[in-house]
Amino acid sequence: MKAVRLHGPRKLRVEEVPTPEARAGEVLVRVEVVGICGSDLHYYADGRIGDTVADAPLVLGHEFSGVVEEVGPGVAGPRPGQRVAVDPAIPCGECEFCLRGNPNICPTVRFCGTPPTDGALREYVAWPAGLVHLLPDSIDATGGALLETLGVALHAVDLGKIRLADRVAVLGTGPIGLMIARLAKLSGAAEVFATDVNPGRLAMARAFGADAAIDARSDDPAGEIKRLTRGRGVDVAFEAAGALETPQQCVDALRPGGAAVIVGICPDDQIPIKSTAARRKGVTIKLCRRMKHTYPRSIDLVDRGMVDLRPLVSHRYHLTEAAATFERLGRRQTDVIKAVVEVP
Amino acid sequence: MKAVRLHGPRKLRVEEVPTPEARAGEVLVRVEVVGICGSDLHYYADGRIGDTVADAPLVLGHEFSGVVEEVGPGVAGPRPGQRVAVDPAIPCGECEFCLRGNPNICPTVRFCGTPPTDGALREYVAWPAGLVHLLPDSIDATGGALLETLGVALHAVDLGKIRLADRVAVLGTGPIGLMIARLAKLSGAAEVFATDVNPGRLAMARAFGADAAIDARSDDPAGEIKRLTRGRGVDVAFEAAGALETPQQCVDALRPGGAAVIVGICPDDQIPIKSTAARRKGVTIKLCRRMKHTYPRSIDLVDRGMVDLRPLVSHRYHLTEAAATFERLGRRQTDVIKAVVEVP
Amino acid sequence: MKAVRLHGPRKLRVEEVPTPEARAGEVLVRVEVVGICGSDLHYYADGRIGDTVADAPLVLGHEFSGVVEEVGPGVAGPRPGQRVAVDPAIPCGECEFCLRGNPNICPTVRFCGTPPTDGALREYVAWPAGLVHLLPDSIDATGGALLETLGVALHAVDLGKIRLADRVAVLGTGPIGLMIARLAKLSGAAEVFATDVNPGRLAMARAFGADAAIDARSDDPAGEIKRLTRGRGVDVAFEAAGALETPQQCVDALRPGGAAVIVGICPDDQIPIKSTAARRKGVTIKLCRRMKHTYPRSIDLVDRGMVDLRPLVSHRYHLTEAAATFERLGRRQTDVIKAVVEVP
Amino acid sequence: MKAVRLHGPRKLRVEEVPTPEARAGEVLVRVEVVGICGSDLHYYADGRIGDTVADAPLVLGHEFSGVVEEVGPGVAGPRPGQRVAVDPAIPCGECEFCLRGNPNICPTVRFCGTPPTDGALREYVAWPAGLVHLLPDSIDATGGALLETLGVALHAVDLGKIRLADRVAVLGTGPIGLMIARLAKLSGAAEVFATDVNPGRLAMARAFGADAAIDARSDDPAGEIKRLTRGRGVDVAFEAAGALETPQQCVDALRPGGAAVIVGICPDDQIPIKSTAARRKGVTIKLCRRMKHTYPRSIDLVDRGMVDLRPLVSHRYHLTEAAATFERLGRRQTDVIKAVVEVP
Repeated sequence: MKAVRLHGPRKLRVEEVPTPEARAGEVLVRVEVVGICGSDLHYYADGRIGDTVADAPLVLGHEFSGVVEEVGPGVAGPRPGQRVAVDPAIPCGECEFCLRGNPNICPTVRFCGTPPTDGALREYVAWPAGLVHLLPDSIDATGGALLETLGVALHAVDLGKIRLADRVAVLGTGPIGLMIARLAKLSGAAEVFATDVNPGRLAMARAFGADAAIDARSDDPAGEIKRLTRGRGVDVAFEAAGALETPQQCVDALRPGGAAVIVGICPDDQIPIKSTAARRKGVTIKLCRRMKHTYPRSIDLVDRGMVDLRPLVSHRYHLTEAAATFERLGRRQTDVIKAVVEVP
Repeated sequence: MKAVRLHGPRKLRVEEVPTPEARAGEVLVRVEVVGICGSDLHYYADGRIGDTVADAPLVLGHEFSGVVEEVGPGVAGPRPGQRVAVDPAIPCGECEFCLRGNPNICPTVRFCGTPPTDGALREYVAWPAGLVHLLPDSIDATGGALLETLGVALHAVDLGKIRLADRVAVLGTGPIGLMIARLAKLSGAAEVFATDVNPGRLAMARAFGADAAIDARSDDPAGEIKRLTRGRGVDVAFEAAGALETPQQCVDALRPGGAAVIVGICPDDQIPIKSTAARRKGVTIKLCRRMKHTYPRSIDLVDRGMVDLRPLVSHRYHLTEAAATFERLGRRQTDVIKAVVEVP
Repeated sequence: MKAVRLHGPRKLRVEEVPTPEARAGEVLVRVEVVGICGSDLHYYADGRIGDTVADAPLVLGHEFSGVVEEVGPGVAGPRPGQRVAVDPAIPCGECEFCLRGNPNICPTVRFCGTPPTDGALREYVAWPAGLVHLLPDSIDATGGALLETLGVALHAVDLGKIRLADRVAVLGTGPIGLMIARLAKLSGAAEVFATDVNPGRLAMARAFGADAAIDARSDDPAGEIKRLTRGRGVDVAFEAAGALETPQQCVDALRPGGAAVIVGICPDDQIPIKSTAARRKGVTIKLCRRMKHTYPRSIDLVDRGMVDLRPLVSHRYHLTEAAATFERLGRRQTDVIKAVVEVP
Repeated sequence: MKAVRLHGPRKLRVEEVPTPEARAGEVLVRVEVVGICGSDLHYYADGRIGDTVADAPLVLGHEFSGVVEEVGPGVAGPRPGQRVAVDPAIPCGECEFCLRGNPNICPTVRFCGTPPTDGALREYVAWPAGLVHLLPDSIDATGGALLETLGVALHAVDLGKIRLADRVAVLGTGPIGLMIARLAKLSGAAEVFATDVNPGRLAMARAFGADAAIDARSDDPAGEIKRLTRGRGVDVAFEAAGALETPQQCVDALRPGGAAVIVGICPDDQIPIKSTAARRKGVTIKLCRRMKHTYPRSIDLVDRGMVDLRPLVSHRYHLTEAAATFERLGRRQTDVIKAVVEVP
């Protein structure tokens, strides 16, 4: 079968590799659509994220959907032919954190497309049956791939514990930030304030439910949020930009006693926060790690029309164009919201 | 009456000032003992903390106890002659945060000994009757002054939500850190790990209940805690040193999903934390702001013998020695745990 | 001024009484609209609720709005002429429960229209200024009176801690149940199941957002909810009928680990629940006591159009018709949702 | 091997049955000590608990410890010869509730000694390796068997969320109530009030840490608790008697906003609670279902000497005396705290 493998920074090749088999407890999924995430671009550009290095050839991609091709021994469901989305994290299932229902912080989790576990940019993936979720007719293959993005946003919103009539800030309106804005409104937030440096994304944020979209290039975003809330600040702020300035902007935008949820991956391995303001307000800062138990709920939200994933997709490529695609995406074109790769 | 007033950095004088009166709803307290806190020393040294400047002559001191001298109109209790400890924070009582039971984050709180509100290093203080708490016979005037320290520790431990058999780290074993260590053991922690750079304080930490006392000068404190917990880490870590290294040490010492409570005031207005480790573990960071509703519980804990405040007092001075006292304490002698000033 | 006073079971008279004055900290409100609540009808029919007896002549009514006529000494706001809704509960403000932000469980709270505190069915009411909330233009006097009902529902939904994509049951669709159904949908519930014995109310429930309306006369409501959730049950169930059967139906309708919020006042001073099923599922039962801190949020929700109170009002009377009105309402006509009394 | 099997109400026989084998993922445990629980006596007396009927011959007993005899395929640990305590619940591991870390409410859990799953009153039991916990040298076989009782108490105390200086009531001081009293003190409760109808158990309660032991035959237990707390009531009340009166006593003993944790199994399938008082106080009632994730923590608490299980054992029997033992225990002798059966 064909697979897109990374052989070092900016070295991506479509290659022929052996097709995997579904072992006991696994299903073999024929991949249909793979979403491209910022972390995929990090591995492409640098061959690493922090101290996690892609030293062997690695297949990238972890947001994907497909069709069950065959099932391994001992698998009760799903069945061949069924359309599925795939949870990319394989927790150990036995550690204290897994047993207590927090597989997202399992220290030995294996994650699709993160070294040394091959990702989804290939024709077939064998994966544990329990991590494969049936798609209803209302969700197509692209929607299935984007459920991973929605799941990250849903976990972040769960951490935020939004209450009816709360004020919420979302700093950064990439795909995850846009989903957070939408879910915050769905949770009964009275007002959602979105910020970004990209006008196109700010327009998207309004379409996804933000009550105000603040251009972080020209404005003082936290000051503007304070102004719009008459000096009070927001109950919950989500950092979804992965920038150096946004963690502090979250703290500045919060009301006393508010909570910041850090979803983005800030550069330079820092979360730069000034202590005095944060301490005086007695804020809580929650570091958001991937997601847990979100697939069934995400599927439900999309299936009922409460969330529409389709406007997220701005670009669509084919598996064979992978090298060019990554090169283009790596240039951080400002018109990209979410790019997906179709596997023929 | 006599009052110790700050007239600028390192300019402290004992002066005669008018004795205040108890207005409606207030009691007049004859001050007996005042504890000296790190924030008092900050104002003494710099004339300011951050952007809060002591520009007029200011009486310092906020940890204090005394005897009710007289009561103003409309005060049902306490009565003259009763021994009391005084809650140094006067919240507005009307804002959203006060009404919801969080007076510690009231944006317009007035705090004893913080500009522009005069503190307790004087013979008499008039204070709202509802903030004055009766002392049982078991707590003397010095104990009454130290209830403020205990209250800060109790609020921090409330935020930490320690569960039976948890592992706990306390980084920094000044008076608040020592109290946190004691309260963590009282909460059923299986093991409390204390760290400090001061051997005398480490010995105190053991006396206050720490199961291990780690010298942060020679060891890698977080690494040592990880080793002592067989690689797992602690459930809750308290930053009570106010140092630049300790916030990161908290994160490093935590198990996945653990919580860090930041109690100390870190220098340079920073909380320096590396994002990757914190995010992968999905930790929560809680900024601790003073205390709320702690006086009755603190009095109860001391009255029942569950907490012993007396070993905290290492140095004892008189009001008239105030200038020399602050100068001496400002040199950060390593043998000082808690200094108190007696008001004759 | 005119006041409607209860002189014993079913003895209601419109009488001339002295007009009250606004004392220090109070405002005098000219009453415009008063909602009639089930508890008013209880006092009318029996002269008591449980061991709380209306032995002196008592003015009923606690859901009301009006216009500020004058303000007492020391009142910074509101000002005469401003339109307001009035929080009917006067907590002591000094007990442990008030200080911690839970005035709804203050043991010495005084409540408008509950002996011995006169209610709102009169031309003027003097009330603490801090409990009087300004109405925006978007909320008329009737809406202002119904904010009390909305507040009870909002407090119940706060207790329920609904999460995105949850399943929710609302048993009983009187005014509070209808509001709970609406707020549950606003909170992101995937499905809300409403039950009642009154077909008109079930139709209202659908209009207020319920996804299914179950006739409790002909169906097994809990069984039907289990069926509609494919055997799983709901995450949160609200008892808002005040019937003998509904607490058990809540438990039966819950998923394992779910929570029941008891809002209604069940007859015979019982909450009849079978222990085995409740225990095996490990459910939590929360008794809902009035409300706390809900007025500003309720006003916000209505002002933004997130909640529409107007469809609740089915009947409208005048103050002078009070006796006939209570007699008629007491017959529990099935077409009454919410009756309001206008004070000319 | 020998097994004690129930053939109907009061029909218990020691019989020869085939020795089980350790299948894949299982270990074979040679049983050493089995604790006798109230539920075992229920099955003995009635052949059923509620609608769960022991219709085939059933081995009773679920509190047990032993030595690993052999391990099945694929078991990494423990190893033969190791001393272990056994978690009696086998959750499905795949349902929503298991995945979220709540195996105690798994709807398809299998429980040792509950129909149709054979229990521990036999020489050998094959059990999933992941549910078998190594015992340190400090815990003997009897202590190992009693860890199940401690685990139930620990889960109850987790639900109660005791805070430092709280007041706690424990109604019923059988083995679980005694452990709850001990754990409540360990959690920093300022005062623990225990009630029972059995003077011997009340004396034990004092030994286990209760500050007051109230004889429920002669006193009004809730009234006495209110008196001892100067009318305030307790923060948390644990129902551990399984009587008809105790749920209401819990509610009466609670302060406003307090929580009752129902641990006992009340007769007649009821939790009789009066609604008015419960509602006015806004209490929460938590139904406690078995336990979750408690074995490692329980072992830790005993190993560190924080809990001493040994005083619980009042009677000791041998497997061959099983029939006479159950007959004797079924008479509810008032001097029995916990009886254990040794398997030779």
